[in-house]
Amino acid sequence: MTISSDTLLILSRSAARYDRLLASKCPETMERYVFQRPEAAREAVRRATIVLGDPDLAAGLLTEAPALRWFQSTFAGVDALLPLPSKRIALTRVEGVFGPAMSEYVFGYVLSLARGLFKARENQVRQVWQRIPYQRLAGRRMGICGMGDIGRHLAKTARHFGMTVWGYRLRPAACPEADRLFHPDEFHAFLAGADVVVVTLPLTPATHGLFDEAAFAAMKPTALLINVGRGPVVSEKALVRAVREGRIGGAVLDVFETEPLPADSPLWTLPEVFITPHQAAVSFAEEIVGIFLENYRRFKAGRPLKYVVDPDRGY
Amino acid sequence: MTISSDTLLILSRSAARYDRLLASKCPETMERYVFQRPEAAREAVRRATIVLGDPDLAAGLLTEAPALRWFQSTFAGVDALLPLPSKRIALTRVEGVFGPAMSEYVFGYVLSLARGLFKARENQVRQVWQRIPYQRLAGRRMGICGMGDIGRHLAKTARHFGMTVWGYRLRPAACPEADRLFHPDEFHAFLAGADVVVVTLPLTPATHGLFDEAAFAAMKPTALLINVGRGPVVSEKALVRAVREGRIGGAVLDVFETEPLPADSPLWTLPEVFITPHQAAVSFAEEIVGIFLENYRRFKAGRPLKYVVDPDRGY
Repeated sequence: MTISSDTLLILSRSAARYDRLLASKCPETMERYVFQRPEAAREAVRRATIVLGDPDLAAGLLTEAPALRWFQSTFAGVDALLPLPSKRIALTRVEGVFGPAMSEYVFGYVLSLARGLFKARENQVRQVWQRIPYQRLAGRRMGICGMGDIGRHLAKTARHFGMTVWGYRLRPAACPEADRLFHPDEFHAFLAGADVVVVTLPLTPATHGLFDEAAFAAMKPTALLINVGRGPVVSEKALVRAVREGRIGGAVLDVFETEPLPADSPLWTLPEVFITPHQAAVSFAEEIVGIFLENYRRFKAGRPLKYVVDPDRGY
Repeated sequence: MTISSDTLLILSRSAARYDRLLASKCPETMERYVFQRPEAAREAVRRATIVLGDPDLAAGLLTEAPALRWFQSTFAGVDALLPLPSKRIALTRVEGVFGPAMSEYVFGYVLSLARGLFKARENQVRQVWQRIPYQRLAGRRMGICGMGDIGRHLAKTARHFGMTVWGYRLRPAACPEADRLFHPDEFHAFLAGADVVVVTLPLTPATHGLFDEAAFAAMKPTALLINVGRGPVVSEKALVRAVREGRIGGAVLDVFETEPLPADSPLWTLPEVFITPHQAAVSFAEEIVGIFLENYRRFKAGRPLKYVVDPDRGY
């Protein structure tokens, strides 16, 4: 057994679980600081060479981390950490874990709304026995914005239910999970053909406010928008207007421009809008710790890390 | 073109659609009577050699059908027509059509309840921003009672979401869609291992009241029961007691001992019970007509029909 010279800071809502998992799974001893809240971590971050952390908690601390060499995010989205204060820091994110969870959330809503399950519950409360007309998912089209590992998993689930899949992605790259792939100059044509539009895009300068008035005008008046990516990718002002004016059918939102969603937001009370508090794919320590350990072995061996974020690109 | 000597009675809620579809797709002229309600069909049924019909509408008419040779059901479940008044009548049912629709319904509820989407909607109405804890579907087990084409399709969807599948079937027959298959003498062991129990069984003397007090006692206290088969397979009295006493977690019911569900049924008001009015898989004429036409060609050619019901077995 070697004594590592590294100092690890765990800064996460699930810090205790990460600590326990690392204690049992990590083959090396290592100096570890374990915190759930950023205020408590200010001293430790100065000494840390490695951080395993929730990006929103660590945002603002990295300028005071002179020894930091590697930050392993516990989230897929790392926008809160960018720009990085130093090129010395390698930032890695989570991939390959959230697709199934996102798929459960997205299809929970797609199926519930297609089948009128919320309406059925209201009928039950009023003791009304009345069939709710529905269409099958088969033959309808899901448009997926962002064909990373989450988008590709959603595509597989959509196909299982007989939907066709259109994909939109920023970079040119083949994508067998989509029946047709669209790039930035075809964004409105992509939107016009989708019955359900799912946003899995990261937040970058290129995606900020991407869903504006013109985007909603391009969508089908029956279309459902589902945002499980990042709130500011969708202009909430434009969305509220589009829903009120019937230019889209409705929306399912897990992420918002400001979280928690402010009490005065009209999104709370629009009947066609369904709201959840940023939990479509919760980061489970048991699923993330393997990614950290794999990267830790690579870090120690001086090999390239997995899922490295390009700070210029933003994901 | 041959002039057929057959007389067809269409007796269905979708009679007009069947008539239109057959007019455009059936290559032969044939005497056709088209009715939506049984009272109007009493005269025509005396002359019919073929009936294409909704079983519940035709029940009671078949004793007055001396010329009838073949009845094509528009439903998967034909219990309303049994026993047949004569061995002369071939009864065929629908297979291979309802699996995807049932899967949409079942997973709409499985995902909504796993993710607390009804609770999330209540939180939204009260403007509460609060995460709802959840477990992923992956690793949980679906127990499917009845591994016909509907059960097997459900199994594929369950596996797509990472669930394991236990199957229960009355007849010994291989079933690669299930990780493990159980037969009647192992019914309680089957129930004991399932997180979600889905009933797709036909109604026969062997399945009537199958879910009794002992069955609910065998289930996990957290288990969800979903009945999309036939109401009388589940004893409602035993179910209400099991839910009230917390011996199972809840139920989703599309079918009932009496339909419409009587106003005084306690099932309406149990919060853990979700009710829909027998519409998990609605019979769409466009999907059924191909089965009728395929069987019609076989009927005319004297070849064996597809999806023939064994009246003794009941399905």
